[in-house]
Amino acid sequence: MSRPTGAWQQHHPQYRGRMWAASPTFRRQLILLRTLLPPNPAAGCSYSPSSSLRVRTMAATVYEADAEAVVRRITPPLDRARHKGQAGKIAVIGGCREYTGAPYFAAISALKIGADLSHVFCTKDAATVIKSYSPELIVHPILEESYSVRDDERGSVSSKILIEVAKWMERFDCIVVGPGLGRDSFLLDGLFLVTNNPGLVEGNSLAILTPNVYEYKRLVQKVLNCDIDQETPSEQLIALCQKIGGVTIMRKGKEDLICDGKTVTQVSTYGSPRRCGGQGDILAGRVNPMTLGCIAGSLLLRRAASLAFDKNKRSTVTTDIIEFLGKSLEDISPAEH
Amino acid sequence: MSRPTGAWQQHHPQYRGRMWAASPTFRRQLILLRTLLPPNPAAGCSYSPSSSLRVRTMAATVYEADAEAVVRRITPPLDRARHKGQAGKIAVIGGCREYTGAPYFAAISALKIGADLSHVFCTKDAATVIKSYSPELIVHPILEESYSVRDDERGSVSSKILIEVAKWMERFDCIVVGPGLGRDSFLLDGLFLVTNNPGLVEGNSLAILTPNVYEYKRLVQKVLNCDIDQETPSEQLIALCQKIGGVTIMRKGKEDLICDGKTVTQVSTYGSPRRCGGQGDILAGRVNPMTLGCIAGSLLLRRAASLAFDKNKRSTVTTDIIEFLGKSLEDISPAEH
Repeated sequence: MSRPTGAWQQHHPQYRGRMWAASPTFRRQLILLRTLLPPNPAAGCSYSPSSSLRVRTMAATVYEADAEAVVRRITPPLDRARHKGQAGKIAVIGGCREYTGAPYFAAISALKIGADLSHVFCTKDAATVIKSYSPELIVHPILEESYSVRDDERGSVSSKILIEVAKWMERFDCIVVGPGLGRDSFLLDGLFLVTNNPGLVEGNSLAILTPNVYEYKRLVQKVLNCDIDQETPSEQLIALCQKIGGVTIMRKGKEDLICDGKTVTQVSTYGSPRRCGGQGDILAGRVNPMTLGCIAGSLLLRRAASLAFDKNKRSTVTTDIIEFLGKSLEDISPAEH
Repeated sequence: MSRPTGAWQQHHPQYRGRMWAASPTFRRQLILLRTLLPPNPAAGCSYSPSSSLRVRTMAATVYEADAEAVVRRITPPLDRARHKGQAGKIAVIGGCREYTGAPYFAAISALKIGADLSHVFCTKDAATVIKSYSPELIVHPILEESYSVRDDERGSVSSKILIEVAKWMERFDCIVVGPGLGRDSFLLDGLFLVTNNPGLVEGNSLAILTPNVYEYKRLVQKVLNCDIDQETPSEQLIALCQKIGGVTIMRKGKEDLICDGKTVTQVSTYGSPRRCGGQGDILAGRVNPMTLGCIAGSLLLRRAASLAFDKNKRSTVTTDIIEFLGKSLEDISPAEH
């Protein structure tokens, strides 16, 4: 998703739906995406449905991704001639009075797998705290919550915020919307907002939704108007993806299921039995080239979680997992000196 | 204890005494408690007075708990099919202008022995600080202190806070009241409040009081109207427990004495000669299935304190002890991968 917060869309309907294709941010990300993909996918990239392991044939076919090959393929080379920023500039839009950990986890994780710059756009209350977690992040205290905005000022405040945020947005390679925005009416969490207004991401082929078990359930109920189908989950995932239209969905769980509306790919290796809050926010950090990015993000997190669990067992917390993101990547795709 | 802060009870007498049984939070916790207890205690659990070592026969009999067996018995299995939250959601109500360390220690300790989510409910001043200690915690800045509330607003402010807190409370498996609430008249520390109003927890069979030496002395003076009895301490503990009615008391000291109103169980293994502030707050973290929980909490803390002291000697502080909580649990009840 590449546009933040609820109030904006309410006050700026021009940012809905199929307007994506016209935005500079969208075009910039599309160019980056193309440079990451191999010139001939069949020749250069180990991920393709035909070369992957077929693991289920219940309804839609689910392929287990050759996730390590994907990570090796899309990891950008380190090059001394590159300048700061060329290995990735990430923006996380999140952080409010109640939630500060989630956007921090997302932003720091991007740095820990090689991004050059990581920005956080949050409320004033959250900014001081998120800054104090790490001097590595650039934190912008520019969002507002309803408790600090008078009803008759909502329109003008949201316009001001939109202008402020918009001038930053096109500088970023990846924009993460929603971890830690909460449910304040003026500042709705990204996925909660999309669940209630799927049209906001409709037709945005660069948008990736990353629901956990509960968020996925709400999304299915709202968009497909039915309950979770336990028998043919991959068929339901494809239907959900197609109904929203054009987006990629990564359904997190014991296995992560990734769907682009046509095929469903699965990542099931590694992982940890610990379900500490915040793990999902790591994943949001650097998912860019759609399915390939989802596969890579899934594998790196699962491997890091597994390594962290080996070391810390039941006491594993999200910070421990983040500490292993670098090793997780290095083991698969070593950096040369 | 499952209801916070003093002002509320003053303004909301309906939350006193035997109203516990009707609350959704109480019922939820009761169900959880039953699932943790073995179907047949005599067969499944190594803790029973008859199988324990009898250590004193002065007045009431005190049994030394087979604490390691208790920890092994009640540690929930790790299961990859579980979702975030299923291994425990903890709330700590505490944190004011003066005290921020105690509620942080209680909340982070819960995560470090395997809980999935840990929330803190505190004042605005405390929230920024507690958040910045760790991104793992979810901190709600919703309590108020008397210096920021006008006398004529006390009623309306406490009603507002109660509504805000109440909507969260039934989501939690364990609620810790009082570390770091201080003695502000609008925000009394849980144990200080209970000492002056024992009726607040009367009949709450899920409430555990965890007084240290001084708090215990005040509790005895107030409830039993006498001084500490050095000769028959366990008899006095039973009398105290019965006088309050229905609660569990864990009297912390060189040996921890745990009483449910009928028997007294002792945990005396391990421990550290360091008495740094905050140790008691670790214990508050995950005491749920009453006596068994107290035994487990006591042992895990004592073992962690011992390991931390071996490493840090006189420089040991509470943070060092928390770092060993995971190892303390892993040594006794290893997590399988």
